[in-house]
Amino acid sequence: MRLAVISGDGIGPEVVAEGLKVLTAVAPDVESTPYDLGASRWLRTGELLPETVLDELRQHDAILLGAIGDPSVPSGILERGLLLKLRFELDHHVNLRPAKLFDGVQSPLADPGPIDMLCIREGTEGPYVGNGGVIRRDTPQEVATEVSLNTAFGVERVVRYAFERAVARPRRHLTLIHKTNVLTHAGSLWSRTVEEVSAEFPEVTVAYQHVDAASMFFITDPGRYDVIVTDNLFGDIITDVAAAVTGGIGLAASGNLDASGTHPSMFEPVHGSAPDIAGQGKADPTATVLSVGLLLEHLGRTEQARKVNAAVAFDLSTRDPKAPIRTTEVGDRLAALAGG
Amino acid sequence: MRLAVISGDGIGPEVVAEGLKVLTAVAPDVESTPYDLGASRWLRTGELLPETVLDELRQHDAILLGAIGDPSVPSGILERGLLLKLRFELDHHVNLRPAKLFDGVQSPLADPGPIDMLCIREGTEGPYVGNGGVIRRDTPQEVATEVSLNTAFGVERVVRYAFERAVARPRRHLTLIHKTNVLTHAGSLWSRTVEEVSAEFPEVTVAYQHVDAASMFFITDPGRYDVIVTDNLFGDIITDVAAAVTGGIGLAASGNLDASGTHPSMFEPVHGSAPDIAGQGKADPTATVLSVGLLLEHLGRTEQARKVNAAVAFDLSTRDPKAPIRTTEVGDRLAALAGG
Ligand SMILES: CC(C)[C@H](C(=O)O)[C@@H](O)C(=O)O
Ligand SMILES: CC(C)[C@H](C(=O)O)[C@@H](O)C(=O)O
Repeated sequence: MRLAVISGDGIGPEVVAEGLKVLTAVAPDVESTPYDLGASRWLRTGELLPETVLDELRQHDAILLGAIGDPSVPSGILERGLLLKLRFELDHHVNLRPAKLFDGVQSPLADPGPIDMLCIREGTEGPYVGNGGVIRRDTPQEVATEVSLNTAFGVERVVRYAFERAVARPRRHLTLIHKTNVLTHAGSLWSRTVEEVSAEFPEVTVAYQHVDAASMFFITDPGRYDVIVTDNLFGDIITDVAAAVTGGIGLAASGNLDASGTHPSMFEPVHGSAPDIAGQGKADPTATVLSVGLLLEHLGRTEQARKVNAAVAFDLSTRDPKAPIRTTEVGDRLAALAGG
Repeated sequence: MRLAVISGDGIGPEVVAEGLKVLTAVAPDVESTPYDLGASRWLRTGELLPETVLDELRQHDAILLGAIGDPSVPSGILERGLLLKLRFELDHHVNLRPAKLFDGVQSPLADPGPIDMLCIREGTEGPYVGNGGVIRRDTPQEVATEVSLNTAFGVERVVRYAFERAVARPRRHLTLIHKTNVLTHAGSLWSRTVEEVSAEFPEVTVAYQHVDAASMFFITDPGRYDVIVTDNLFGDIITDVAAAVTGGIGLAASGNLDASGTHPSMFEPVHGSAPDIAGQGKADPTATVLSVGLLLEHLGRTEQARKVNAAVAFDLSTRDPKAPIRTTEVGDRLAALAGG
């Protein structure tokens, strides 16, 4: 397996080191190549994602990313020029975000019940395309726009992927989340697409919810959800709500997939670079390790993925929730469990 | 006080009756005029909001609205043609949504701590303007767009209102919520506007958070928020998260304000028409009564507003959370408390 590794900034290198530790414990054949991208490279050289680097990344089977970002970089530069650039250039149209409440993990909810949902967020369209502009900047007549672009091509492929995942799960339930009553143009496309594709998956029951109502039910009744499909911006928000109720972003894994397999998919913890705790060895690498699990699963290495996930599940169920996290110790434990 | 009353559909008439009971208990001078608008009128006559009715509504000091909506009406019709039409025609640029955890109310959070935030959502711009369209409908080449429109005029007035509210509260703290790192055009306008207006309010401390992070902190640390200002769509989502953690939409009140006073402001519970429980006398009218409190406050009837809010606070602190709600009994109790 040829793996490109973008450790990035802040706690990125710390958690990625543990992710690789666990990965190599189950998959000794990994050849990993580090890529220096992120805030520090930009601050040093002004480079974000040179074409040559992008070409090299394309030669890999998958990419593991830690975290990108630093308070000294103006907002938007690394997001547009690096993180979203990777997702768009590599056609990562499926943003996969499981949200499961593991045994032993404390939810902020008083009575969470079992939670096991798979959020599937579109990754290459919607309000994330960067379309829009500003006129009469800095005058009282300024107007700023943002355009959400949604195509039948783009919506259909992510909806189809969501149905494929739903039909393979025990509950076979899919919920579309949107705001079709207000965003009627895009909403209609999403609704019609779900309806059409659902005809091919008669075993899957389908529900629809407005994003505002869903955000509430994620808190009051998260157990009702199985697979969720939604647009890029709604997905950004609701997956953080889902992460919060399942124990926080310290545990939230994600995959940015090109489901067609043309380009390498990219796996990253949902959390950011957390500069406030960087270098102190106390970041929780679990989200990165779970992202490694998604990576293995995506590459068809089902048994290796199972080992990684089982290691995390066991470790979480036996962790003392009050004991402070030591990054390398967590990685050592998980590597031993997964590889043993 | 000339009050227009739109009871609407489902549980709307039931909760509005109790809202009026409490209102007249503290403000015997209310002259209320009922307006028949909503799903049932549309189903009967095809009318949504006739110009003549809109003109009549304009002649009032305020509007009290129950709930609009029925499963037999296609999604989007009542929203665009009535609810949003009222907000846009009457220039309701401030959508006021307090989220307070009252004593005695059970939060779904295990350890909510004190929560007392005032969400201020822009009401006449953003992705809600209905701008966008569809080409090549029902073909594989279909493209659907939604355009978020943001103007210096519109952003500045709601931001200024938010600062005015923040400076009058003990904590004097304001949080802008947006997604400035991705929606860079609109985000820049919002950020610059908050920065500019903040110069006039040196007593107010200002914070910024991305909407995804904020949705998480609303769950893990809601006590940190005081006043929040945000755009129309983000506001739709995060105010439901805020409602969920403070006990649910049964308690969430809202005001749609024309802060300039040119048009009447409109007050409504955040919940919908709940057709599943309509006519059974078990809807909780508390959100409507709290909306009456916002109405009185908006009209400068501070002492009457105080009585209504105190009645609700007392009643909630003494309610048996397990006892079923009886709509009229709750209204009777609140009216007696507020008027006594
Ligand atoms: C950093 C940012 C561009 C990104 C997003 O909005 O997608 C992040 O919030 C995420 O969810 O991965
Ligand atoms: C019914 C709908 C148009 C409305 C909105 O999205 O604003 C509702 O969700 C609300 O929050 O008042």
